[in-house]
Amino acid sequence: MPTPRTLADLDAPQLVIDLDVVDANLQRMFGAFQNREVDVRVHFKSLKCAGLARYIACHGGDKFLCAKLNEAEVLADAGLTDIFIANQIVGPIKLRRLAELARRADVRVCVDDADNVREMSRAATEAGATIGVLVEVNIGMNRCGVEPGEPALELARLVRSLPGLRFDGLQGYDGHLQLVADADERKRKCHQSLEKLIATRRLIEKAGIPVKVVTGAGTGTWEFVGFYDGITEIQPGSFVLMDSIYHQVRPEFACALSIMAAVISKAPGRYVLDAGSKAISKDFGSPAILGRPHDKVARLAEEHTVVESDRIDLRIGDRVRVIPAHCCATMNLHRNCVAVRQEQVEAIWPIEASGRYD
Amino acid sequence: MPTPRTLADLDAPQLVIDLDVVDANLQRMFGAFQNREVDVRVHFKSLKCAGLARYIACHGGDKFLCAKLNEAEVLADAGLTDIFIANQIVGPIKLRRLAELARRADVRVCVDDADNVREMSRAATEAGATIGVLVEVNIGMNRCGVEPGEPALELARLVRSLPGLRFDGLQGYDGHLQLVADADERKRKCHQSLEKLIATRRLIEKAGIPVKVVTGAGTGTWEFVGFYDGITEIQPGSFVLMDSIYHQVRPEFACALSIMAAVISKAPGRYVLDAGSKAISKDFGSPAILGRPHDKVARLAEEHTVVESDRIDLRIGDRVRVIPAHCCATMNLHRNCVAVRQEQVEAIWPIEASGRYD
Repeated sequence: MPTPRTLADLDAPQLVIDLDVVDANLQRMFGAFQNREVDVRVHFKSLKCAGLARYIACHGGDKFLCAKLNEAEVLADAGLTDIFIANQIVGPIKLRRLAELARRADVRVCVDDADNVREMSRAATEAGATIGVLVEVNIGMNRCGVEPGEPALELARLVRSLPGLRFDGLQGYDGHLQLVADADERKRKCHQSLEKLIATRRLIEKAGIPVKVVTGAGTGTWEFVGFYDGITEIQPGSFVLMDSIYHQVRPEFACALSIMAAVISKAPGRYVLDAGSKAISKDFGSPAILGRPHDKVARLAEEHTVVESDRIDLRIGDRVRVIPAHCCATMNLHRNCVAVRQEQVEAIWPIEASGRYD
Repeated sequence: MPTPRTLADLDAPQLVIDLDVVDANLQRMFGAFQNREVDVRVHFKSLKCAGLARYIACHGGDKFLCAKLNEAEVLADAGLTDIFIANQIVGPIKLRRLAELARRADVRVCVDDADNVREMSRAATEAGATIGVLVEVNIGMNRCGVEPGEPALELARLVRSLPGLRFDGLQGYDGHLQLVADADERKRKCHQSLEKLIATRRLIEKAGIPVKVVTGAGTGTWEFVGFYDGITEIQPGSFVLMDSIYHQVRPEFACALSIMAAVISKAPGRYVLDAGSKAISKDFGSPAILGRPHDKVARLAEEHTVVESDRIDLRIGDRVRVIPAHCCATMNLHRNCVAVRQEQVEAIWPIEASGRYD
C-alpha cells in the first residue's frame, strides 16, 4: 500500500472504488442471510482483484465464485481457498491445472459432459487431488448445462462412480433474467426456473444421492433465489461495485465504481473526457456522469467520452467521475484500481485477472 | 521468444496474429505510397504491442501514431522514437511526462486550447525539451480540435511564439467516416472534410507560417486521404490486423487477428466457446467463426460465445478461430498475443499498453 494521499493527487484517468459504498453493499447482502442457512458466494469475475477479494473476506464472507481457472488461481495465491468455478474446464492442460489447484484449495467446478467428467477424474487421480463437482443444469439460459431431470441424475451418478471427484450438488444460473426490468416479472420467471432445479434436486436425492449444494442467482435475482426453498447458496458479484444498469434493477445497492476522468477539450455545448470505451465498458450501454444529472454522454470513442452539456462550468484539466454501465466488464479493462474512502486513497490494487481468459 | 511450437500445443483461449496476413496487409499499404511523398504512420492504438510495432518497423515503416501517452512511452522503451500522439495531453503530471519523453524521442502532440499550449511550453522549457505540436482541426467529427480557419491560425501563432514548442502542422481526423458502408459516399464526405483542412493549411501558410505536416485518415479512408493534394501523412491502424467489420469496407486488407477458442459445451443446435465479450470485443458487433460460414454467433456472454449451428461436427475441447468485429478494442482486452506463421508459433508478445489509459 502506498503512502495514503488523496485522489486529487493522482493523475486521470483512474478506476476508483469507494470503500464506504462497498461496505454498505456488503452489509446489505450479507446481513440479509445472517440468520439463514444460505451461503453468499461472491462472484470474483466482477472483481478480478485479489486485494478487493481479501477486503470482502474481512467484511462479509470468504467464499468466492469464479468464471475462469486463472481467477481461481489468483484467489488461491491470495490465500482465499473456498472456490467454486461455475464453468466447464476442458482439455488436458486445464484439467491438470485444476487438479493442481485442488491440492492447495477447496475447489468445486461445473460439469455437463460425461467425457469431460471421465478426463477430470483421471487428472484428479494422477495429481492425488479431490475435485468437488456440481452438475450444471440448464434452467432456461440455454448456454451450458444438461437438461433438468434425468440427464442431470445420470451425470451425477457418473461423478459419484469415479475416483478423484466428489459430487457436491447442482448449479443453475438464471443469467438471462438478471436485467429483466420489471421486478415482478423477474421474480416470476426466476421461480419458474428454480422449480426445474429443485425438482432435479429431489430426483437425485430420491435416487439415494445426497445433494449438499444447490446454487445459482446473480445480483438481479439474489433475493428471489436466496429465499427460495431448497437453495443453499447464491452467487452474486455485481452488488459489490455496482453500475448504472444494475442500479436500475437493484436500487438497494449503490454504485461504488467510477472512472475519474479529466476534461481534455471543450467546445460550445460539449466537453470531452480522457477515457473512452477502452476504459469504460459500453457493452451494457452508456455511462453516467456522477453528480451532473443534466450532462448527457453523447458517445464513447476508444479513448474519448463526448459529453453534451449546456452548463459547462468545467475547465480543461478538471475531473469528473464516470459511473460505468457494466462493472464486471469495466474491471476487466484495467490493470489497477484505486480504493478510496472520503477521497483518501487507502490502496492501489492490481487487478490480477483482468485481460486473462485461461 | 519461447522455443517455437505449433498453435495446437497451446491451450485455448489465445489471441492469435497470423504474420503472413500481416505481411500482405503491410505490403498493400506501404506499397501504395512507395513512390509518393506521403508518410504512412501506423496507429499504435490498434496494436498496443511493442513486439508487433518492432515487426512493422522491420517490414514497412517505423513512424507510429498513439492515442495515449503511455502508448508513446511503450514505443520509446522499444526503441521506436518517431512518435505522434494524436490527442490532447493535459495537466501538470502528464505534461511533465510528455516533456521527459521528448528528451529521448521525437515526439509530436495535438493541441486545441491556448492555456494547454502555454502550460506545455513551460513543461518543455523546464525539461529542456522540444515538443512538436500539431494544431488539431475539427473537420466534422465534433470531438476535439479547434474550428477550421482563423481559430487554427490563431493557435498556430501562439505555438510559434512560445519556447520549447515547434509548430509542425495540422491534424484532421475523419473518425466519423471510417465505417460509412458506401465507398462513394465515404469518399465524397471525406474529401468535403479535407477541403476544410487544406483551406486552413493555406490560410496559415499565407500568414507566413510553414506547415510541414498535414495528417489524418484511418483504415476506412486511407486512400481517399493519402492521395489528396496537400496531405503529407496518413495514420491508419486497423489495416494491420483487421476485423470482420473493417473487412466489409476495406476488403483489400485481410483479417490477421483471431481468438483461438475451445468448445466447452454442446447441445442440439448450438455449441459454446470458452471466450466471450471479455476476450472478443463486441462494441462493433458480433464476431464470425473462421472457416465455418454457416455457424452463427447467437450471443456473447462475458466468458462464453454461444454459436448456433446445424452441423455440429465439433467435439468438446475442439478449437475454432473467432474473427473479432473490432481489432483495436480486442487487442486492448488481452495481456499477450501469439504470433504465428502457418500455425507455427514465432513469438508470444506481451501487449504492454492494454488496460492502461494514462
